[in-house]
Amino acid sequence: MRYQLYYWPSIQGRGEFVRLALEEAAADYVDVARGPRGTAAMMGLLAGKGTATPSFAPPFLVAGRQVIGQTANILLFLGSRLGLAPKTEAGRLWVHQIQLTIADFVDEVHDTHHPLGPMRYYEEQLAPARLRSAEFREQRAAKYLGYFEGLLASGGYVAGRRLSYADLSLFQIVEGMRYAFPKAMARLERKLPRLVALHDKVAARPNIRAYLASERRIAFNEDGIFRHYRELDG
Amino acid sequence: MRYQLYYWPSIQGRGEFVRLALEEAAADYVDVARGPRGTAAMMGLLAGKGTATPSFAPPFLVAGRQVIGQTANILLFLGSRLGLAPKTEAGRLWVHQIQLTIADFVDEVHDTHHPLGPMRYYEEQLAPARLRSAEFREQRAAKYLGYFEGLLASGGYVAGRRLSYADLSLFQIVEGMRYAFPKAMARLERKLPRLVALHDKVAARPNIRAYLASERRIAFNEDGIFRHYRELDG
Repeated sequence: MRYQLYYWPSIQGRGEFVRLALEEAAADYVDVARGPRGTAAMMGLLAGKGTATPSFAPPFLVAGRQVIGQTANILLFLGSRLGLAPKTEAGRLWVHQIQLTIADFVDEVHDTHHPLGPMRYYEEQLAPARLRSAEFREQRAAKYLGYFEGLLASGGYVAGRRLSYADLSLFQIVEGMRYAFPKAMARLERKLPRLVALHDKVAARPNIRAYLASERRIAFNEDGIFRHYRELDG
Repeated sequence: MRYQLYYWPSIQGRGEFVRLALEEAAADYVDVARGPRGTAAMMGLLAGKGTATPSFAPPFLVAGRQVIGQTANILLFLGSRLGLAPKTEAGRLWVHQIQLTIADFVDEVHDTHHPLGPMRYYEEQLAPARLRSAEFREQRAAKYLGYFEGLLASGGYVAGRRLSYADLSLFQIVEGMRYAFPKAMARLERKLPRLVALHDKVAARPNIRAYLASERRIAFNEDGIFRHYRELDG
């Protein structure tokens, strides 16, 4: 099965959580919008052309005749196929729950630079962005990251002894926080030894290491979700 | 199986999407935090006492030995058990995808009154709330609701001929929008005939009708997600 991933071609964004799973599993996939006419194809599918299950927004995945949207839902689908999810239903739901909580965290990260909504430029919402970021740095980030740290209390991976797609996403969150909020994250990490250890363990996996060193890994930038604005880092 | 739902006892909030599914299916359930010592029991489980799968936030559901969090994940679990989801894997993923998009919409509704984050009171963020609400009323709500309307294009229910939990959630969204943004929603509804028809069809179902008329249905109020603040309705 050759999977087709559709996502914005110049950012990591939410698509990155799917890319990491595909890369770890060495799955056969195409990052369609990064190829010729790929963005036009993406916009067509978003508009419902040729599919009965159009997504509200990227990312979405084409797998045979299925078109599957919503990041966590794509990972739910891929998890069992790529060997990145537990075999029991209870285990799969638990990993999915963690992924949905990661998605909530990512939404709050996005809101630090867009508190007035996604349609206005960052520069038009600088003052509220400072306020929202302060609350995020001082309260929300610690609460979320502390929650994930707690799940790792027993050592190993977030849902037990085997790697799951949620571990790859936690790696990405540490990467993103270090990029966007380097000062705040350095402070936060003092209380997150297990999360940092998980990050390092994921980064050292051969397929992930090769991916990160490749051109397929897009660099963080100020069009994505994790953006570095010095004024928001306290 | 007697299900135990844990959610804040005085608001509809995200728990309402689960309540509607349980009520439609006439499932045996207890809304634990609304009973004696229920909130304390909820806080204990949130703190990880007696469970290996603690949730980041309510709602969560106890089903036998499983503790399942994240609204859409709970509905994914309940959907097949309560006859409120398709039988095929592709169908289940599609309904779940719609539910996750509903969850995104609900997050944006929440942000209309809390653009600076969940920790400050509404009164402390009135000016940014006005700006965020204007964008929401004029752009985001139309985009989301128009998307759901488009899915209903073929008539019937959102994922085909049979009722699913996502239809119940769409009913709730129409209810919530009418409560929170009566003026804006009256305008929006002119372009949402199928969504309004679905709302009416759900409201007329015997179990839903009985639920809405009962004391189990908490009234909308200004502690929940859908809040009516006249100044945010344009």
